[in-house]
Amino acid sequence: MNQTIKTQLNHRTIRFFKEQTVDPNTLKTILEVVNRTASSNGLQNMSIIRVTDKEKRAQLAKICNQEYVNAAPEFFLFIVDSYRNSQIARAKGYEGESNRSMDFFFQGAADAYLAAQNATNAIESIGMGAVYFGSLLNDAQAVIDLFNLPELTMPILGLGFGYPNDEPELKPRMEIELKVGENSYPFIENPLHTLANYDERMTNYYDTRNANQRVESFTNQVKMRYEVAPELRSQILRVIENQGFDLNIIR
Amino acid sequence: MNQTIKTQLNHRTIRFFKEQTVDPNTLKTILEVVNRTASSNGLQNMSIIRVTDKEKRAQLAKICNQEYVNAAPEFFLFIVDSYRNSQIARAKGYEGESNRSMDFFFQGAADAYLAAQNATNAIESIGMGAVYFGSLLNDAQAVIDLFNLPELTMPILGLGFGYPNDEPELKPRMEIELKVGENSYPFIENPLHTLANYDERMTNYYDTRNANQRVESFTNQVKMRYEVAPELRSQILRVIENQGFDLNIIR
Repeated sequence: MNQTIKTQLNHRTIRFFKEQTVDPNTLKTILEVVNRTASSNGLQNMSIIRVTDKEKRAQLAKICNQEYVNAAPEFFLFIVDSYRNSQIARAKGYEGESNRSMDFFFQGAADAYLAAQNATNAIESIGMGAVYFGSLLNDAQAVIDLFNLPELTMPILGLGFGYPNDEPELKPRMEIELKVGENSYPFIENPLHTLANYDERMTNYYDTRNANQRVESFTNQVKMRYEVAPELRSQILRVIENQGFDLNIIR
Repeated sequence: MNQTIKTQLNHRTIRFFKEQTVDPNTLKTILEVVNRTASSNGLQNMSIIRVTDKEKRAQLAKICNQEYVNAAPEFFLFIVDSYRNSQIARAKGYEGESNRSMDFFFQGAADAYLAAQNATNAIESIGMGAVYFGSLLNDAQAVIDLFNLPELTMPILGLGFGYPNDEPELKPRMEIELKVGENSYPFIENPLHTLANYDERMTNYYDTRNANQRVESFTNQVKMRYEVAPELRSQILRVIENQGFDLNIIR
């Protein structure tokens, strides 16, 4: 097993970091990795905002409802970006509205997410750690306002990283066999019975976030997530629409 | 620079493969890497179908309009999956409709895309190559029908991989500096002027897909992509809605 895969199999989310900064050359290398990531049709429909401003970080921490947004030495905001290419196409004389299509939104989402994971692999390969902040979608409109993002852009994921000051346990996962089917969808006959073993592994797991308290069983977590589903998060399409994407465009 | 990053900076899409199969242990390792990928709230809202059936591959190749879907030794179909957790929550007595929210769709999309890139990094680290097929969204409904996918699932990306029989050039990218802003969005003042150098690099690039013909300049490619935007692709939200996601749910 090579070092890349060893590191991947050892992945855990790092939420607390040493004060050590990430040197500019390392940062540049990570960004070059981002830039080399596969991109839908080569269109490169994504951008990044590197958030160094303490006040903006504090606002993000409030949106994410995660204090540790402030403490990560580096924070990249990954953005679906159909604005840049729209400007290019307009400059080339394109006058249609296809650029507002959800097709390009999803191409940008693929570009942004793939780039984020590629960055994470680079970060972890050099002994640093990372934490994703999907929680910025708690209030995507507030993130847009905070950075005055132009139309046809959409913040989709945050990534904090630096040198770890945190030693979390490996978080248990459902067996991969339950998630993979050969030529057909992997239906699970009796989910609570099938997941009983995983539930038990999960309740023996300690999460460093919550002062080392044990966590709920997985099946309880799922139910609770649906029960407390936040109102604003479910309205993500309204925010995407406000950003100029036409949810109903057909061409 | 470590080997992980060297490999990442050397990434190119591999479309043509040797007949050599991927041995089961290697496949298992790649799937373990997939399983270790970060997941939104730990909910693991993604699944994979490994497509070994030649007839199903042929159908996918038709949908993707890419003959080489057939020839990849392995093909993973990445699926946004809110069905499994919905089944779990129902079994636990949950009776609400939050599970249909686009919030969970996007959590699943993040999970699926991050897992795909993590897989790609593992694949490339062991000397294999990979090709993404976003092109299955040319007709997502046909993919759903082909695999009888249940409600609250959505195919989002294909990944073909194996041992390379292809030596493509490194595809030129727009300078990363144009995509990254510090604390604000990286606006480009005069895009055609700013991208002139990149356009020139692109026209000197040969794509192995098209019998080694030179490709269009980037700015021309962007314009052409908008001009020929396919009708079905832009209707992706209708397919997502048909799968049981409630685009307007608010809770």
